[in-house]
Amino acid sequence: VQRFDIGVIAGDGIGPEVVGQGLAVLRAVAQGAGIEVTTTDYDLGAKRWHRTGEALPEGTLDELRRHDAILLGAIGDPSVPSGVLERQLLLTIRFAFDHYVNLRPARLFPGVRSPLDVARVAPEGIDFVVVREGTEGPYTGNGGALRVGTPAELATEVSVNTRYGVERVVRDAFARAQARPRKHLTLVHKHNVLSYAGHLWRRTVEEVGAEFPDVTTAYQHVDAATIFLATDPGRFDVIVTDNLFGDIITDLAAAVVGGIGLAASGNINPDGTAPSMFEPVHGSAPDIAGQGKADPTATILSVALMLDHLGRPDLAAAVEEAVAADLAERADSVRSTEQIGADIAARLR
Amino acid sequence: VQRFDIGVIAGDGIGPEVVGQGLAVLRAVAQGAGIEVTTTDYDLGAKRWHRTGEALPEGTLDELRRHDAILLGAIGDPSVPSGVLERQLLLTIRFAFDHYVNLRPARLFPGVRSPLDVARVAPEGIDFVVVREGTEGPYTGNGGALRVGTPAELATEVSVNTRYGVERVVRDAFARAQARPRKHLTLVHKHNVLSYAGHLWRRTVEEVGAEFPDVTTAYQHVDAATIFLATDPGRFDVIVTDNLFGDIITDLAAAVVGGIGLAASGNINPDGTAPSMFEPVHGSAPDIAGQGKADPTATILSVALMLDHLGRPDLAAAVEEAVAADLAERADSVRSTEQIGADIAARLR
Ligand SMILES: CC(C)[C@H](C(=O)O)[C@@H](O)C(=O)O
Ligand SMILES: CC(C)[C@H](C(=O)O)[C@@H](O)C(=O)O
Repeated sequence: VQRFDIGVIAGDGIGPEVVGQGLAVLRAVAQGAGIEVTTTDYDLGAKRWHRTGEALPEGTLDELRRHDAILLGAIGDPSVPSGVLERQLLLTIRFAFDHYVNLRPARLFPGVRSPLDVARVAPEGIDFVVVREGTEGPYTGNGGALRVGTPAELATEVSVNTRYGVERVVRDAFARAQARPRKHLTLVHKHNVLSYAGHLWRRTVEEVGAEFPDVTTAYQHVDAATIFLATDPGRFDVIVTDNLFGDIITDLAAAVVGGIGLAASGNINPDGTAPSMFEPVHGSAPDIAGQGKADPTATILSVALMLDHLGRPDLAAAVEEAVAADLAERADSVRSTEQIGADIAARLR
Repeated sequence: VQRFDIGVIAGDGIGPEVVGQGLAVLRAVAQGAGIEVTTTDYDLGAKRWHRTGEALPEGTLDELRRHDAILLGAIGDPSVPSGVLERQLLLTIRFAFDHYVNLRPARLFPGVRSPLDVARVAPEGIDFVVVREGTEGPYTGNGGALRVGTPAELATEVSVNTRYGVERVVRDAFARAQARPRKHLTLVHKHNVLSYAGHLWRRTVEEVGAEFPDVTTAYQHVDAATIFLATDPGRFDVIVTDNLFGDIITDLAAAVVGGIGLAASGNINPDGTAPSMFEPVHGSAPDIAGQGKADPTATILSVALMLDHLGRPDLAAAVEEAVAADLAERADSVRSTEQIGADIAARLR
């Protein structure tokens, strides 16, 4: 029998609630397929940090590394200084496990309400995927501060971009574009101002593009890309972009296709040298934690991305279809986190 | 009699067309108020660069400096390598004239169509202004590249932030918030990842805020801000943010309130040590240049910002009202650039 050995970081706030339902759906679909799922819980997040002063204890990375994949709920709490858990836990894992493809699909499911006037601005629907670079850019923690707290304070942030890092994610994005019907790749950057990095990205897309002659390409400055995401999102197929631009436009993309309650993501190591990690795009939402109000759909769709990555696109599609069916009937019904998870799981049995 | 001495950079593409109508409206409103307007044209942009190899000839900055204000149409042409005119012309002026307040209002005028389902997501209307820092951040041109064109290429971009630079723009934003009915200021940044710069911005907002006890404040990460711009833009009153985040969210804001055909901006030196420069947010749109198809409204609204800056808020309001009246009756009518300008000017005579 096939076995999936999953490391689980439920995390903070609504994390445990949504992860609970993500796992329920994973088990339902696995059972039907005769797959054995084993999970190991990792107690990481704000509480652990308060208790021990450590965000990611030594040795835990090594333990996490042994799993086939990781499912993460959400990390973050107002009681922890900004940046601590982000840098010491979430970004540490993304960087240590070389998650250079941060995959974020944006698809408007039937029945889901967009804040856009969709009939007018996206009559053909919305279905694209953002390939966000995950290990470079302004996320590396390079930079520093001088004379902090004085009138002469100076703070810098350095965006680091290498041909090595850009080329591998661009090639991955081209391959994903080639596998889709429209075969279209858009580079989003800001090469008219961020010229050093921008020209590296641009040249790399041109050069790698020669390996994918059937993929058409386009370029958008990141500012203009936000306009098109609001006024003509149907034009996008695959977008490739840097870590920070990707962070920004995928939240906007999530809003456009119905909100971060539905937005899935995969932090993927395509080379398989470490496990990939799947997580909803939303945060820990401490204001609604523990009330059964969180929408587990983003986590469930992240489980679909995980199944695809684990070599079972058939099961990924089944989960997506179950979610689509659930969404189509949702309208304004109010169900608990658990009920939504149970309803979707029931469709898979 | 009052005199306005304006330096005019019509620039490339649709620049001359929209600037022509901006000046027509300026003259109409000035005439009614007994103000004399003199203009000096500066031949800058792609053509000049091709002819002379220079984007901003020595001495021109000094000439520009003598005017009361500058009106700029648009800069940029595909025949010029990306970044050349941006850095050597547009950004050179912004930096040399210390345009540290890049002011970008976003107001949904009655009759204008938003791509949003406004009745649902912004029933109370949309009316906010972004104060984008204009002289620091990733726009300074710091950074560099190593081993260009080799597999070992490295490219960096450095975001530079100083207490001096952040404090002055934050204080300006607070003052603008205090002068508005809602008195609400939102800082947009990404302090959970860009910690050095983010903490400087955050501390500065806290500290300067003590001088403005009647202004309420909020904070949004830039990624979350794009969500709210799409799902609840009515919540914003004044936004203060860094140069790059401001670039991105003001294009999105422009889209949300009807498109960059309507989006005005002022590059303002609030200390008056150099002239401020007013320009539409849109670019040179070479694809529609010379066809009378460009919408001059963004330039006309930029003229309103200029009038306000030159100490005539009454005339600024008159121009805004004329634009509002024109927009209210526009519906799907198709008029030329010149006709739109003439119609708005006629309302001001
Ligand atoms: C929490 C934060 C560090 C993270 C990011 O910026 O990548 C989040 O916004 C995301 O998009 O996954
Ligand atoms: C043309 C470009 C340099 C400029 C910027 O990035 O500031 C433009 O996008 C703007 O917003 O005025």
